[in-house]
Amino acid sequence: MSEPALELHPDRLLPPEPGVRDIARRLYASVQDLPIISPHGHVPPSWIADDIHFDDPTSLLITPDHYVNRLLHAHGVELSTLGVNQQDFGADQRREAFRALCANWHVFRGTPVRYWFEHTFAEVFGITVAPSAATADRIYDEIAAALPTPDYSVRSLYRRFGIEVMATTDDPCDDLHWHQRLIDDPTWEGRVLPAFRPDRYLEPARPDWNADVDRLGEISGVDTATWPGWVAAMEERRAYFKAHGATSTDHSHADAGTEVLAQQEAERIYLAARAGTATAAECTALRRHMVTEQARMACEDGLTMTIHPAVARNHDPEAFGTYGADVGGDIPHAVEFTRALQPLLQRYGNHPNFTFVVFTMDETVYNRELGPLAGYYRSVYVGAPWWFIDAPETIARFRENVTISAGLLKTSGFIDDTRAFCSIPARHDMNRRLDAGYLARLVATHRLTEDEALGGMYDTVVTCPRKAFKL
Amino acid sequence: MSEPALELHPDRLLPPEPGVRDIARRLYASVQDLPIISPHGHVPPSWIADDIHFDDPTSLLITPDHYVNRLLHAHGVELSTLGVNQQDFGADQRREAFRALCANWHVFRGTPVRYWFEHTFAEVFGITVAPSAATADRIYDEIAAALPTPDYSVRSLYRRFGIEVMATTDDPCDDLHWHQRLIDDPTWEGRVLPAFRPDRYLEPARPDWNADVDRLGEISGVDTATWPGWVAAMEERRAYFKAHGATSTDHSHADAGTEVLAQQEAERIYLAARAGTATAAECTALRRHMVTEQARMACEDGLTMTIHPAVARNHDPEAFGTYGADVGGDIPHAVEFTRALQPLLQRYGNHPNFTFVVFTMDETVYNRELGPLAGYYRSVYVGAPWWFIDAPETIARFRENVTISAGLLKTSGFIDDTRAFCSIPARHDMNRRLDAGYLARLVATHRLTEDEALGGMYDTVVTCPRKAFKL
Amino acid sequence: MSEPALELHPDRLLPPEPGVRDIARRLYASVQDLPIISPHGHVPPSWIADDIHFDDPTSLLITPDHYVNRLLHAHGVELSTLGVNQQDFGADQRREAFRALCANWHVFRGTPVRYWFEHTFAEVFGITVAPSAATADRIYDEIAAALPTPDYSVRSLYRRFGIEVMATTDDPCDDLHWHQRLIDDPTWEGRVLPAFRPDRYLEPARPDWNADVDRLGEISGVDTATWPGWVAAMEERRAYFKAHGATSTDHSHADAGTEVLAQQEAERIYLAARAGTATAAECTALRRHMVTEQARMACEDGLTMTIHPAVARNHDPEAFGTYGADVGGDIPHAVEFTRALQPLLQRYGNHPNFTFVVFTMDETVYNRELGPLAGYYRSVYVGAPWWFIDAPETIARFRENVTISAGLLKTSGFIDDTRAFCSIPARHDMNRRLDAGYLARLVATHRLTEDEALGGMYDTVVTCPRKAFKL
Repeated sequence: MSEPALELHPDRLLPPEPGVRDIARRLYASVQDLPIISPHGHVPPSWIADDIHFDDPTSLLITPDHYVNRLLHAHGVELSTLGVNQQDFGADQRREAFRALCANWHVFRGTPVRYWFEHTFAEVFGITVAPSAATADRIYDEIAAALPTPDYSVRSLYRRFGIEVMATTDDPCDDLHWHQRLIDDPTWEGRVLPAFRPDRYLEPARPDWNADVDRLGEISGVDTATWPGWVAAMEERRAYFKAHGATSTDHSHADAGTEVLAQQEAERIYLAARAGTATAAECTALRRHMVTEQARMACEDGLTMTIHPAVARNHDPEAFGTYGADVGGDIPHAVEFTRALQPLLQRYGNHPNFTFVVFTMDETVYNRELGPLAGYYRSVYVGAPWWFIDAPETIARFRENVTISAGLLKTSGFIDDTRAFCSIPARHDMNRRLDAGYLARLVATHRLTEDEALGGMYDTVVTCPRKAFKL
Repeated sequence: MSEPALELHPDRLLPPEPGVRDIARRLYASVQDLPIISPHGHVPPSWIADDIHFDDPTSLLITPDHYVNRLLHAHGVELSTLGVNQQDFGADQRREAFRALCANWHVFRGTPVRYWFEHTFAEVFGITVAPSAATADRIYDEIAAALPTPDYSVRSLYRRFGIEVMATTDDPCDDLHWHQRLIDDPTWEGRVLPAFRPDRYLEPARPDWNADVDRLGEISGVDTATWPGWVAAMEERRAYFKAHGATSTDHSHADAGTEVLAQQEAERIYLAARAGTATAAECTALRRHMVTEQARMACEDGLTMTIHPAVARNHDPEAFGTYGADVGGDIPHAVEFTRALQPLLQRYGNHPNFTFVVFTMDETVYNRELGPLAGYYRSVYVGAPWWFIDAPETIARFRENVTISAGLLKTSGFIDDTRAFCSIPARHDMNRRLDAGYLARLVATHRLTEDEALGGMYDTVVTCPRKAFKL
Repeated sequence: MSEPALELHPDRLLPPEPGVRDIARRLYASVQDLPIISPHGHVPPSWIADDIHFDDPTSLLITPDHYVNRLLHAHGVELSTLGVNQQDFGADQRREAFRALCANWHVFRGTPVRYWFEHTFAEVFGITVAPSAATADRIYDEIAAALPTPDYSVRSLYRRFGIEVMATTDDPCDDLHWHQRLIDDPTWEGRVLPAFRPDRYLEPARPDWNADVDRLGEISGVDTATWPGWVAAMEERRAYFKAHGATSTDHSHADAGTEVLAQQEAERIYLAARAGTATAAECTALRRHMVTEQARMACEDGLTMTIHPAVARNHDPEAFGTYGADVGGDIPHAVEFTRALQPLLQRYGNHPNFTFVVFTMDETVYNRELGPLAGYYRSVYVGAPWWFIDAPETIARFRENVTISAGLLKTSGFIDDTRAFCSIPARHDMNRRLDAGYLARLVATHRLTEDEALGGMYDTVVTCPRKAFKL
């Protein structure tokens, strides 16, 4: 039996009906080679600054990618086998982890992970056989051989991927020295921007909050003993980030709640929280007030604000204890935006300097809440589907459900949100194909002319992310 | 460069797969020219009574249509620019508003508003160029020239649109003199019915409630100082409406809650509410009891009861203050029906004289709650998708999700719910095309014969609205 | 006019696009004749033990099937007319009930019930005319004539349907003598397994709970006066069921809540519940603790645990009073799993001996909660759509929404869950066709090779149910 080949079909993900596919091909072709705009992701800036080479296929493709390790875990593979949070993870173990992936290749059938991997294997590494127990070592060796070569340094890949701009995700206390090094590097022509992610400082109920806020005070040089101090420290750090190129801030809390406390009440609760005497309800109220304050600051400094609430973090406390955060034990739950965001939107929703991108893992809100909100408030943009719903089926529905009330232009553009550097082109390419399919269906049902659809393609790939993230 | 043309393709909105489209064409053709039954809408009866001519394109097509002005608002156009709530809005301003629409034509790509506009421009006004900044004045002038001509009086359009019957939406204290004038007019052969919309009298928590209920007492000639008085006054007004041709009552509150209070408790809370001493919880309980009372009255007088709860009204209080209600700041939220309607349905759900049409802007309830309710209770009909979900994508899913448990016949027929008179044929035509597509897919997958699908088409266009609204 | 024929098209339910349909035909053909695995249903074991013949078409096809009688009820047919809960239901009445079905045949257009009936009529009984008032008697007579013949005994049908294994649903206090008779019957080569359904013993708030738990004590021979006694009695009955072939337990409560009480607290509340003094909140807490205890037992005895919460039972109390449970007055409502299952999953979610199949009637949870849970926890399998969402449209979406995060293999395989014995092949065949369509679309969009899709077909029909139910 000959080994199954790995081939990327040029029509992959396009609508199968020949008439619609023909239109979609033309729409896709019009944006296929446009640069990648990646306004939100998790690639460490140090990689680019040092122009690193990746060590090996496993630490590149498996260990850091929770999409991969969660499904392997579900099928009985230990996270430790995949290198998650392992101090000493030797060459043999890395090869074993890669074998585990290839031997379990069938469990990924129909998932987007499978699609991204195929693209990565074929396009980035030139692999031509499908992964399996029989081919695992060969694929591993081919990738391992490529990684140290000049074409596979991070900057080489960045250029080859056609990335125009890429944002990282950074702590407010970060001094952004990696970003500074990139700014100072005359050999570096790319654009890698920080993004401000202050969640930990907005959660007074967290055990480490007090220490974090102390540190925020030190780093910002503003005393955070009082509520005005917290505000001023935040403003200082936002300004610092903006000075280093940041165009956005990102926020993820248990819910989308916003609230405006009276100044005195905010001060009172803040002091109680700092003293460790605030109740759970007060901590929640203060957090919501802090989120709303970030919107107020955004109106002033112009940084785009993005939120993606409503995921139960570290659902499996044992795995969290052993392996730490972000390794698969995060599970979405239902989210409510209409009432939760009202206090924030009634103040800042139509502010000319405010841009507010709302992401969700609960797709029921697209036509019920987010489309209507973005179809009315000037600041609101509906974020692209991500995390658990960044799949072909859900991305297609996202367009169908949001466009009807908010149009194409009040959306964020595609967000890859990834730790898996080599999957970035696969993810953006997936989205371009799906948007082409969506718009082709509008043309095929005579709702748009093909010229308009071509304009729509350009908008989703270029206009939207530039506008939503002020790039 | 030649200007893009505006053309309505005969196959628009039909399924793009040729085999399915052929079937859909035949199904659509079978109902294409049937009269329009419009059992719920917001056209003022005075227009028909006076057989008015519309003043100008903007006050006809833009200012009163919140679908249009909310998306333009989201893109930075001021509501005042569109004429919303403007006392003096001159000829130049009207033209500017129309230019704003045309210059922003691209923001409507993929929305149903765009589809309705195209139909209206092409079919009602014979426009042949696509709207744009370059064509705005020309289109404006063409429409403006047509409006004063005899063919464009409201009655002429009513006839041309093939409207068989149309309901308005009216306050219980309305004396329905416009409807009476139509009844008395020997030159008028159409059918324009009032519909009873008593929301304000069922919300004891509203600041104006007491004054409204006083007025209800005056108009009905029944003292509303007591709970039995409120009930008797309501019954009087319902009878008055029924005598003037009404066949339905319409209700929209914050939730779908129903409740049956003991008579004494209802009386106690009613008196407290009238005295301004009822608690928020009591006001809610009384409102739910009042809703359930309307169902009880419906069993007696046979008026169809429709509800469409769960929208956050006037989400943007500043716009509400400046421009008033119904201008775009209404945002849906999740709704629950199964438990909320149980108290009402356990009493009246199978009553032979009761017809209960339930609308939603939250489509998740179609197969989870409304289909199962309509597939069991005799009174329950699932209302057509409307407001934020009256788009091709959601209308198609409505059929898919409701039919599986309730069949085609336990649905309301299409509801246009519109203030935009000229969009009525576009909206009904859209729905006929989509139902044809849905049924064609059932035929193409061999779940129905084409004869049965033809029967289904007739049912959705004629049988359902006649039955659900007793027309 | 010639009478409409009843014909099953070989391509029914396959995708209508010719290119996709060709692939789907091959995929479907590969599993079309594979045996039926039915791990959850409601066929009485006595039927098989006694190898009964069905009395008449109505008591076979209408009276016990709430899918059928609820929609006829919605259209005004009395449940009594259909034989529901009727002591004396004579030959004429049975014929009248069948006439009511046939005369209302059109109300089932587009429902899965219609599809199953067509399959049953054509394939099981060789009927060749479509049901209608005109053909009702003829169809009735043809079926009635077939029923007493040897080919229509239950065992003959079981063999003809190609059933490999079928589970029943049984009370923990059942002595399983019917199952024992089948085990002891040397002429019986089939496999009919009990399933453990202990709901009533886990609801301390039920009026009959105390008596039920007394009886549990008697039957198990373990004193249930104390909490450890309840646990031991449950363990005894589970062991008894397992010894009689059971491989699963099934649970349906008002919500999916799980909770772990401290031992002392569990004992305290249990005693209070037995004494009739537990509060509603305590009863709920104890029920959730009991559910979690079942998971603990499952880790020990290896019985698969299935849950399907969140349906409002007996929504219409009048019909419940007259006709009893399970006759159509059950209505689903929204359900939450992410937080509700966390206490259970943090303890047992990755236990190597635990298999946990989660069903829902609220499809919004598929990609938001269940797919992510099954894509991480080893024990979790997403149950096939059932009850109100076991229709072509929802089954197709189930695959789309679950596969993206959990893959094909973390699903339960098809579950017919039916009281309607003759519909079993129709239901399984429907699902095979829909899975073929789903996988064909993945092939047609170049996400899978056809060989992989063939593997996926086999997995959904054979691998998944065997693994999820340990068959």
